[in-house]
Amino acid sequence: MAKRVAIVGAGVSGLASIRCCLEEGLEPTCFERSDDLGGLWRFTEDIEEGRASLYKSVVSNSCKEMSCYPDFPFPEDYPIYVPHFQFLEYLKTYANRFDLLKCIQFKTKVCSVTKRPDFTVTGQWEVVTLREGKQESAVFDAVMVCTGYLTNPYLPLDCFPGINNFKGQYFHSRQYKHPDIFKDKRVLVVGMGNSGTDIAVEASHLAKKVFLSTTGGAWVISRVFDSGYPWDMVFMTRFQNVFRNSLPTPIVNWLIAKKMNSWFNHANYGLIPEDRTQLREPVLNDELPGRIITGKVLIKSSIKLVKENSVVFNNTPREEPIDIIVFATGYTFAFPFLDETVVKVEDGQASLYKYVFPAHLQKPTLAVIGLIKPLGSIIPTGDTQARWAVQVLKGVSKLPPSSVMIEEVNVRKQNKPSGFGLDYCKALQSDYITYIDELLTFIGAKPNLLSLLLTDPRLALTIFFGPCTPYQFRLTGPGKWEGARNAIMTQWDRTFKVTKTRVVRESSSPFESLLKLFSFLALLVAIFLIFL
Amino acid sequence: MAKRVAIVGAGVSGLASIRCCLEEGLEPTCFERSDDLGGLWRFTEDIEEGRASLYKSVVSNSCKEMSCYPDFPFPEDYPIYVPHFQFLEYLKTYANRFDLLKCIQFKTKVCSVTKRPDFTVTGQWEVVTLREGKQESAVFDAVMVCTGYLTNPYLPLDCFPGINNFKGQYFHSRQYKHPDIFKDKRVLVVGMGNSGTDIAVEASHLAKKVFLSTTGGAWVISRVFDSGYPWDMVFMTRFQNVFRNSLPTPIVNWLIAKKMNSWFNHANYGLIPEDRTQLREPVLNDELPGRIITGKVLIKSSIKLVKENSVVFNNTPREEPIDIIVFATGYTFAFPFLDETVVKVEDGQASLYKYVFPAHLQKPTLAVIGLIKPLGSIIPTGDTQARWAVQVLKGVSKLPPSSVMIEEVNVRKQNKPSGFGLDYCKALQSDYITYIDELLTFIGAKPNLLSLLLTDPRLALTIFFGPCTPYQFRLTGPGKWEGARNAIMTQWDRTFKVTKTRVVRESSSPFESLLKLFSFLALLVAIFLIFL
Repeated sequence: MAKRVAIVGAGVSGLASIRCCLEEGLEPTCFERSDDLGGLWRFTEDIEEGRASLYKSVVSNSCKEMSCYPDFPFPEDYPIYVPHFQFLEYLKTYANRFDLLKCIQFKTKVCSVTKRPDFTVTGQWEVVTLREGKQESAVFDAVMVCTGYLTNPYLPLDCFPGINNFKGQYFHSRQYKHPDIFKDKRVLVVGMGNSGTDIAVEASHLAKKVFLSTTGGAWVISRVFDSGYPWDMVFMTRFQNVFRNSLPTPIVNWLIAKKMNSWFNHANYGLIPEDRTQLREPVLNDELPGRIITGKVLIKSSIKLVKENSVVFNNTPREEPIDIIVFATGYTFAFPFLDETVVKVEDGQASLYKYVFPAHLQKPTLAVIGLIKPLGSIIPTGDTQARWAVQVLKGVSKLPPSSVMIEEVNVRKQNKPSGFGLDYCKALQSDYITYIDELLTFIGAKPNLLSLLLTDPRLALTIFFGPCTPYQFRLTGPGKWEGARNAIMTQWDRTFKVTKTRVVRESSSPFESLLKLFSFLALLVAIFLIFL
Repeated sequence: MAKRVAIVGAGVSGLASIRCCLEEGLEPTCFERSDDLGGLWRFTEDIEEGRASLYKSVVSNSCKEMSCYPDFPFPEDYPIYVPHFQFLEYLKTYANRFDLLKCIQFKTKVCSVTKRPDFTVTGQWEVVTLREGKQESAVFDAVMVCTGYLTNPYLPLDCFPGINNFKGQYFHSRQYKHPDIFKDKRVLVVGMGNSGTDIAVEASHLAKKVFLSTTGGAWVISRVFDSGYPWDMVFMTRFQNVFRNSLPTPIVNWLIAKKMNSWFNHANYGLIPEDRTQLREPVLNDELPGRIITGKVLIKSSIKLVKENSVVFNNTPREEPIDIIVFATGYTFAFPFLDETVVKVEDGQASLYKYVFPAHLQKPTLAVIGLIKPLGSIIPTGDTQARWAVQVLKGVSKLPPSSVMIEEVNVRKQNKPSGFGLDYCKALQSDYITYIDELLTFIGAKPNLLSLLLTDPRLALTIFFGPCTPYQFRLTGPGKWEGARNAIMTQWDRTFKVTKTRVVRESSSPFESLLKLFSFLALLVAIFLIFL
């Protein structure tokens, strides 16, 4: 059984991994390259190598009830969608609450993680670290890699002919911190992921002109979803998931398109996705259509040619003067401290069984946590991955034979759509609830809705029809949280407590009362007729 | 017949008045206090006495197809909702196109407008002006007052107990120009009209904390309305207006509340209007719910007490530290150059027949243009008022006896709801289409939908079911525009031309084609069965 576990990185997944190790009696040592925890969520004015870089205005894309650690809800007075500085605060409180800091070595870079000579027998790893210029080496029974996928900027300059002649300023979105630099400038943002869209919208408050160039377009949704409920609390229910996954993909895509266009018709706004047969990760932005309709952000197709002080776009004759180009072209990931024989990265896919375990290792003593992009929050996903991984490291949960795992990885690489439900064909994309349920099944922690329906029907119905909040994942099994049931039953109260700050006496009009009375009478008549 | 007409103010209504005078062979002289035209729409860094003051980010609340002069559409490349600097550009193009500049005397303040001794016979006015220190006097056959209602800030400081002890900065929203002043400050905006909401949202991008205090709450709607269509093009149709006005007010209010809450539930966001039986002018803002859900703007009820460095709100125990208070408490209007016997202003209502003619003048030779807040654009409203007024000044159109006019004014002052349709009980509020139709009827310019249905059914249906664009108002009658029909039939094409900037090949999925095929077959079967 593994005992000493090395954890690489103290971001959200690193913290979950430490926590899960402690919970199960393992001895974790977490190596964090920077001088504090939080990873991605720690905003700094300077960009640090090897750590994701935030811009000042970042707010979480998952609401607080959906993106917390499953046994640690956000404080009640936090906003529904949490800005980065409060997110970091939350992570620190979490670390304190579960006493995780004692396991973290800060300012320590992991240089290499290599198999020990006797790996096939012991499954042990040699971890070489660098701390304040001093190299150290130690042996661990297991390793959990929690370095994320947002550290290496992807900037394919050769896709933008003429960029070398450009006399203005250009940089990758990773470099972006504050909108001030855009003041009175003509700005072009290339790429319409969450960052690109955020940056274009922010720039539009100060810049002279803002263009947002996108080849593929995207569905844009707002945090303020149906009747103002948080998008993920509406979208991520088990009921909807079962419904979606039992319909053929074309019908699901059609329904999704209908839904997405109900906020604004994407064709009228120049945003309609080119390939509507695959669900690209939708872009989350509350302001974009408002900025387009007021002419503050102009949507353009892909770049044809960059000139000295201007850009020509495909399908438009006019060239547009541009002062600054921001390339929001995304990220790649890599494991510089691991040999390729351990984890191979190809076409943005790593050869990991269920996104966690290298498929062809002789011993399952290395796990990658948080290297996945579910259409949901990464925190509960990472927490569940870590819970499963720890059970495997302990030998309680067994992995299938290597051949089965390699097959799973290969099938995923082939990107074959199943024909049902949403298509998650892009690298690292996965169906949130289905994926987590699978991991929970591995460790016997999946709530049994049928038996719950008999013993606790209110809970069962809330779990099935309500938002799939993380508390569900620690309702049972190893790492079960006693507060889970209560947290589930009060999830909606907590959500709007912080925005219902102006209380108004309900002045229900006589008309409304009348309407209610009529409905009640109609109900009585109906019951009467049925039993007649 | 009036010949020489003095026009006070060269804002949107002043320009329309000059235009209408010229059109009908009158001789207008427009006195403009500042050194350029545009009134409200001319942004300057400094605040000028007697002229409305804009903040830098202002964008029109009516879309370009709904807020143009009825015979002068906005240029095609303008955004759907026009920012102030382009709005001013448009006004200047309008003035050039109809050669209005020759009639305007800039830097000329109107000091007094008084009846000539022989007024009861001639209806003439003596207009005293001040220009570069030099007072001048001239006699006019008629006067058109176009000074608007946004020049005198309303700031009832005694409603905010303790404000005199406040050590921070406070000012009326009229003073506001740029959000920079809010950087890292704790800001309180008082009042939730359009300005207050805009300012709070803007501040929230820079400030440390932003509170928006509202006593009454408000319905908030977005320019991006149903499926992304401009709100006013959806809301302002003759069909909807007939529908609304034929239902009892409680039902209309209930339907409106349902509609308003479909974007976001106003109760959950602390914004629910206190008095839901009257329709306060809805607030137009595309970003507010997104700022609330991310905790960037906090809604508070009314102020209980202002302290040295903090504010206590009603119904909340905690006092909040505040650095800056912005009072977005609105405006009052007055006519300092007119004697009270000409127009009396009481409780925000002027004694004007149909918002235009003083009800008890012996001669109808003075008209007030643009002193109304229809739930629609002021430009076509002012244009139609001016067209009617000019016909009255010319003696072609007659006013009813003074007693009838005084009765109309008194009824309006009594604020008696009719029991049907929306309640426009607040000062200056009026039902847009109904009001304009009434004026058009006075001058025989109301399109006759029934006869149109026989002669030009496509046009008739577009006018009835489509957005009530201003072109309809100059389709016929004096001032008829030949281009009106074409402008109406192409209104939707023009709307989205500017945002459909990224064209995508319609990759209609096999499923969609199949669906279409099925629908077509079903239709055939239905027809077959009917004729069997």
